[in-house]
Amino acid sequence: MRIAILGGDGFVGWPTCLHLSAQGHEVHIVDNLSRRWIDTELGVQSLTPMDSIQERCRIWKQVTGETLHFHLLDLAKEYERLKQWLAEYRPDAIVHFAEQRAAPYSMKTDRHKVYTVTNNVNATHNLLAALVETDIDAHLVHLGTMGVYGYSSVGAPIPEGYLDIEIDTPTGKRAQEVLYPTKPGSVYHMTKSLDQILFQFYAQNDGLRITDLHQGIVWGTHTDQTRRHEQLVNRFDYDGDYGTVLNRFLIQAAIGYPLTVHGTGGQTRAFIHIRDSVRCVELALDDAPERGERVKIFNQMTETHRVRDLAELVAKITGAEVKYLPNPRKEAAENDLIVKNDQFLALGLEPTTLAEGLLSEVVEVAKKYAHRIDRSRVPAVSAWTRDIGTRVDRDPEGRALKSVS
Amino acid sequence: MRIAILGGDGFVGWPTCLHLSAQGHEVHIVDNLSRRWIDTELGVQSLTPMDSIQERCRIWKQVTGETLHFHLLDLAKEYERLKQWLAEYRPDAIVHFAEQRAAPYSMKTDRHKVYTVTNNVNATHNLLAALVETDIDAHLVHLGTMGVYGYSSVGAPIPEGYLDIEIDTPTGKRAQEVLYPTKPGSVYHMTKSLDQILFQFYAQNDGLRITDLHQGIVWGTHTDQTRRHEQLVNRFDYDGDYGTVLNRFLIQAAIGYPLTVHGTGGQTRAFIHIRDSVRCVELALDDAPERGERVKIFNQMTETHRVRDLAELVAKITGAEVKYLPNPRKEAAENDLIVKNDQFLALGLEPTTLAEGLLSEVVEVAKKYAHRIDRSRVPAVSAWTRDIGTRVDRDPEGRALKSVS
Repeated sequence: MRIAILGGDGFVGWPTCLHLSAQGHEVHIVDNLSRRWIDTELGVQSLTPMDSIQERCRIWKQVTGETLHFHLLDLAKEYERLKQWLAEYRPDAIVHFAEQRAAPYSMKTDRHKVYTVTNNVNATHNLLAALVETDIDAHLVHLGTMGVYGYSSVGAPIPEGYLDIEIDTPTGKRAQEVLYPTKPGSVYHMTKSLDQILFQFYAQNDGLRITDLHQGIVWGTHTDQTRRHEQLVNRFDYDGDYGTVLNRFLIQAAIGYPLTVHGTGGQTRAFIHIRDSVRCVELALDDAPERGERVKIFNQMTETHRVRDLAELVAKITGAEVKYLPNPRKEAAENDLIVKNDQFLALGLEPTTLAEGLLSEVVEVAKKYAHRIDRSRVPAVSAWTRDIGTRVDRDPEGRALKSVS
Repeated sequence: MRIAILGGDGFVGWPTCLHLSAQGHEVHIVDNLSRRWIDTELGVQSLTPMDSIQERCRIWKQVTGETLHFHLLDLAKEYERLKQWLAEYRPDAIVHFAEQRAAPYSMKTDRHKVYTVTNNVNATHNLLAALVETDIDAHLVHLGTMGVYGYSSVGAPIPEGYLDIEIDTPTGKRAQEVLYPTKPGSVYHMTKSLDQILFQFYAQNDGLRITDLHQGIVWGTHTDQTRRHEQLVNRFDYDGDYGTVLNRFLIQAAIGYPLTVHGTGGQTRAFIHIRDSVRCVELALDDAPERGERVKIFNQMTETHRVRDLAELVAKITGAEVKYLPNPRKEAAENDLIVKNDQFLALGLEPTTLAEGLLSEVVEVAKKYAHRIDRSRVPAVSAWTRDIGTRVDRDPEGRALKSVS
């Protein structure tokens, strides 16, 4: 297939490009490189030294003989160029990663809130409008988030996107299937909730074939393909905005920094290893809905864990210390989470679960590049409200860390 | 109260400004005048001759002695100016009409889709982010639409925004209240569905006090205030994009144009007279939620009617002919609609229902200005999809109108 990978230079985008190229697909990376600009803005960098996208593509060609095509294009701002691009290349499938993806970044200041909404909503909507306008029947696979479901304890498993409900009518109860009621916990998560409504409309009105992947928190860094050459290495974020919880614990352990648990650590979240993430995209691509079908929604995760349990596990393996800090987020202190992921299992996904070997692999990567870490950028300090901001301690080395335990 | 009325130059915005000014409030109109620009773009004009906003404000001052303050500002594009404006004026309440509000316009071309999404989402989100940033605890009253509920027959009354559902859990059924599952039928309606999620998040995360008015189709043109001087007249749209169904029937009757029913006319919709619309905004303003409360949602409508019944009623009063035309929209041919509006009734709303006298008043207005009508702009021709577009007849005078009956 000819596959356009929007946001193909990012953390999940890049290994997905390599994976699909290795499967024999013609891969086109469409990216505005905004993630690299945000690194510049924040003054942080990937823990792993990351080459330019052009250089990465050159190395892949050298290693495998396969071409990755790169197109610099801003989905959110360049609607007419997007349309021209689609009309010229007419992809069979599109994988859409091209959104600002960090909750803490989206809550940093009002400018970051506005940027995240404008960028993410316009990117997704431009794509949908352009697909209709160019009359391209490509299967669109979008990277969403488990966060659209919210993290309150519902006492029932989270289904894959749709909820069966009963409504009282004058003639008795009536069963109905609805999009799972959304309860996003950050501006970033909110944009993925908005995306769901855009998808629902365009599938219904225009028959677009759309799959939405509600992904858990990705951990790990290597896939089989990124391992093939040092310059194909995946980006690896350790900073308080873009680093995600489990990877951050592993990095903190590697550099002798306390494992920073926010609040009680009773937050339960869904996880998936990067290797499974790229495999899920492949499986989803092969399982396209028909025209006129509702949006297909997968829960793209393999296991759930409580944050404090993860911290204790990493501490046990590495000997690191665990610190309980004030939570910069506005969220339930504790929640249960049971998630259905039957669809990917039925399609043949074999989950890579939290094994000590894989955890240690990440610690090894972190140790190898530890000299590149700016310790002052490790704490997560973007607060969800001004009030919360005053309670969040900014001391990078934990000397004055306030404890909530 | 000092009240900012965003979009205060529009069809419901303007009479709302006058109504609230007449109640003694300090009224600030904030508008980018985009609706006037769209008239220019489409080459149509309000049936009623409409003065500039500055002139309208001058007349109001002359007639009543009250000042209407006008501020030219683009909510969607001028975030920093919006923030400055809020910080300077610190309104006690904000009424937000500032969105592109025509479904057919939003479906006209891909450019119109993109404009509607960008404009509406950014306007609403900019406002929310700016309220948080300036730390202004104004009650925000937003004009939404009944269309967020969708128009399928659910066999149960549509509640006011929230639905009580039951979820299966391992320990039995569990009751939960959720936002009514949204099913918007156009890009325009979709933006109001997106707004709901923005409101939910900002009420929850930042304690913003928000009321969302799910309004039905507005009909009529005069309010007590617009009647006070010829130059205070409200705008009155008759064209196929901005004209709304009942008003269009009345105008068509006035100029001897057939009443154009799309599809079978079995669509059931909710209606409200413009006089009640401005009164509802007043009632909602006085009934603000507390900080931390969920978004308050009212169904702002007074009655429901089937489109073909309205056409027959107008035909009976006026002797006009009814024509059944292909439907440019993608929607259910027939639907039931029962709507709860208990909250406004409890607050004292006395509904102005479809009375022959009021219907005739609109016909009289239309006859008075009939010489301003471009008959070729009367048909609704913006089609929801390209396929539907090929079936929609564009002949303005009905000579070649295809019948679906």
